[in-house]
Amino acid sequence: MPYFDAASAAPLHPVARQALLAALDEGWADPARLHREGRRARLLLDAAREAAAEAVGCRPDELVFTPSGTHAVHSGVSGALAGRRRVGARLVVSAVEHSSVLHAGEAHAAAGGTVTEVPVGRTGAVDPEVFAAELRGPDGAAGSGVALACLQSANHEVGTEQPVAEVAEACRAAGVPLLVDAAQSLGWGPVPEGWSLLAASAHKWGGPAGVGLLAVRKGVRFAPQGPSDERESGRAPGFENLPAVVAAAASLRAVRAEAAAEGARLRALVDRIRARVPELVPDVEVVGDPVRRLPHLVTFSCLYVDGETLLSELDREGFSVSSGSSCTSSTLTPSHVLRAMGVLSEGNVRVSLPPGTAEADVDRFLAVLPGVVSGVRDRLGAGSPAAGGGEDLVVDALGKRCPLPVIELAKVIGAVRVGGTVTVLADDEAARLDIPAWCEMRAQQYVGATPSPGGGHAHVVRRLS
Amino acid sequence: MPYFDAASAAPLHPVARQALLAALDEGWADPARLHREGRRARLLLDAAREAAAEAVGCRPDELVFTPSGTHAVHSGVSGALAGRRRVGARLVVSAVEHSSVLHAGEAHAAAGGTVTEVPVGRTGAVDPEVFAAELRGPDGAAGSGVALACLQSANHEVGTEQPVAEVAEACRAAGVPLLVDAAQSLGWGPVPEGWSLLAASAHKWGGPAGVGLLAVRKGVRFAPQGPSDERESGRAPGFENLPAVVAAAASLRAVRAEAAAEGARLRALVDRIRARVPELVPDVEVVGDPVRRLPHLVTFSCLYVDGETLLSELDREGFSVSSGSSCTSSTLTPSHVLRAMGVLSEGNVRVSLPPGTAEADVDRFLAVLPGVVSGVRDRLGAGSPAAGGGEDLVVDALGKRCPLPVIELAKVIGAVRVGGTVTVLADDEAARLDIPAWCEMRAQQYVGATPSPGGGHAHVVRRLS
Repeated sequence: MPYFDAASAAPLHPVARQALLAALDEGWADPARLHREGRRARLLLDAAREAAAEAVGCRPDELVFTPSGTHAVHSGVSGALAGRRRVGARLVVSAVEHSSVLHAGEAHAAAGGTVTEVPVGRTGAVDPEVFAAELRGPDGAAGSGVALACLQSANHEVGTEQPVAEVAEACRAAGVPLLVDAAQSLGWGPVPEGWSLLAASAHKWGGPAGVGLLAVRKGVRFAPQGPSDERESGRAPGFENLPAVVAAAASLRAVRAEAAAEGARLRALVDRIRARVPELVPDVEVVGDPVRRLPHLVTFSCLYVDGETLLSELDREGFSVSSGSSCTSSTLTPSHVLRAMGVLSEGNVRVSLPPGTAEADVDRFLAVLPGVVSGVRDRLGAGSPAAGGGEDLVVDALGKRCPLPVIELAKVIGAVRVGGTVTVLADDEAARLDIPAWCEMRAQQYVGATPSPGGGHAHVVRRLS
Repeated sequence: MPYFDAASAAPLHPVARQALLAALDEGWADPARLHREGRRARLLLDAAREAAAEAVGCRPDELVFTPSGTHAVHSGVSGALAGRRRVGARLVVSAVEHSSVLHAGEAHAAAGGTVTEVPVGRTGAVDPEVFAAELRGPDGAAGSGVALACLQSANHEVGTEQPVAEVAEACRAAGVPLLVDAAQSLGWGPVPEGWSLLAASAHKWGGPAGVGLLAVRKGVRFAPQGPSDERESGRAPGFENLPAVVAAAASLRAVRAEAAAEGARLRALVDRIRARVPELVPDVEVVGDPVRRLPHLVTFSCLYVDGETLLSELDREGFSVSSGSSCTSSTLTPSHVLRAMGVLSEGNVRVSLPPGTAEADVDRFLAVLPGVVSGVRDRLGAGSPAAGGGEDLVVDALGKRCPLPVIELAKVIGAVRVGGTVTVLADDEAARLDIPAWCEMRAQQYVGATPSPGGGHAHVVRRLS
């Protein structure tokens, strides 16, 4: 049963499992204690810190273990912001950061700070020039009130690598520390030089849950927030999760040793998916950068399909994938990443291959996908467009969830004359993203949206062909 | 090699180990995902929550898992304080709470709140009347600005049980929520009714590190602080540490099943230590309540000995114990618990027996202890008191660490006449606790302390016998 959701979580690496079992026997005691069990635990903790620091590319005393990648990000952001409070209260982040960064930003804004989101292009990458401009601030002065900048090493939903080295250089020039969320990439290799803080999460590299890491370069002003204790240099309170930390460090070392070969192999498999999916399935958009990307991850969106049904049909066929689409989240809002990229969100599928994925499983996925997508489309009544060439039309899709507004639009567009318009009334949040994306994919003109008296928006689409 | 530091951490319970291994295979995926691995993880998480809630005595939806007991306390205190911000900003805690509670109080005070510490008696227990008076506030009005009260179920250093039921009733009468830190007791049985919030830590009950729990009763005003996400009802952000959570719940259930029998057995062993140590070792104070106490824990202090040396000598003999004494901590300040109790802190030893402790190991400990203590005392030059009956004396112990000031005092007291005084100049923080405690143990009069011109304090002791 192929599991293609490694970007969410992956089974323990065999090396991590072995290290965990050994550390459960040897490392359960309190490393702060003086007795032999405590000293043994302390030795394991020190060795794990050294191994992790080497993989990160920092000094052991710059690195602390946290309960999760999310905690590492939250502590890193709040500590760095507090450390530079006198400089200012502006936080600059890319618009496609992981939710943990955005949540830290929300907490900062709620406390009176300012958060600036740097937009991304259609591939999901920030433009270093645009990022640098935000660091200079509206008046163009260097370091104008920016306390911290955050940029992920690679995007968790679409796999696009960010220009970390260039942004780090811009941060250096502006005198602003840069926090890099390396959660998705650290297992594949070190982050380019120039970061000030780095956060990551062990269960993304085959380590156990319950371990994150936060590295803070010497010289970076850092004031840990909230209650603290004497553990982990005062930066991560609470009893150390030592067996898991040992397993996390062992796993990081192991996956790094395999990264070059396995990365090349998975990169080829992902290239195959990127190439074949648009050939096999009509009306699909493969998103993210095709080259500057994580080796194991690809995301595509399918018109006229809702993501939740698509995922559950793929699950029935034995494939575990995930989705950033509105239709799979409990909030019914489209993924902020896809929205920032301006790409289609409906029928969104993220495939992230764990190390060791068999080529045959990828081929079977490609064999199964077309039938699954067309089955869902059939059930939703997509694919039987009207023809004609008549007057402008209004489609009332109020109260209908994605992908129904787009399906209704696609059905009737052929019924108006070229140059005529279809107005779609829709209150599903995803429609604001997906109707323009549909227009781009189908070479029709998205005229714009205005608030509709009946709630939601009236989206006007002009037929061009 | 007997390990007698179960109150710090204990090896995994065999049931926890088995559950952990199974959950590493079955529960590594993201429980928020819709695929089969995610659904399987969700089922495990739900089952663990139900098992833990049953042991705690609450509803499953009142309980969340946190990365540690410390996180549970920090989140519980900050969330409850914020939830009742409009009522006031006073936090009332016992003076002998775990450092995690005191650190949360420090953060509250740093943010402008007020923290009131309720004193304890010589056994380490609060007086419910005194606690109730603090809830009423200085003007005697009910609920005068108290947002939250905290009381541990039992003390982590001396084992004394707190009168939780009576304090809970006082809190109910005052309309103040009560947070109970049940870290040391939850494995032995449920906390008495009446609490509003409850925090605990799995590695104290044979579960793995990396798991705490926080229960918040329905109806308690609670506003989680800091960044949050959709995990654990918005009360504990970050990817769930699921295999460890499963193991923690399994272990809690297992130790509870054994608690009555094993508790009675360990209680008898601790009674033996409490009775025999003062018979076997001169100048020892066994502290804590002899009856209302945890079954497995006993603490005693030895005059004329420094704790660090004592611990390392016991370690050499194969016994792992711990200490709250000044001389073992890096900060060189005496334990806040012993200070609040007003008992001797020097030569402090905490013995906490893990389940399954062999009677023979306890007897061997009792056989070894006297020689170890007298060996340390000999090396420090204690035990050869001067005699005489002469004039008042001044002892300059400035710059000398505990237990040297007390050793010097004990050496010369016999050299002054009955009714005469010895003045000890000392700048070790522990002397302020240990010189009065020595006077109480040796039936001499502690006249008082005044700041000394050379730094530290001048402690005046009158010879009575």
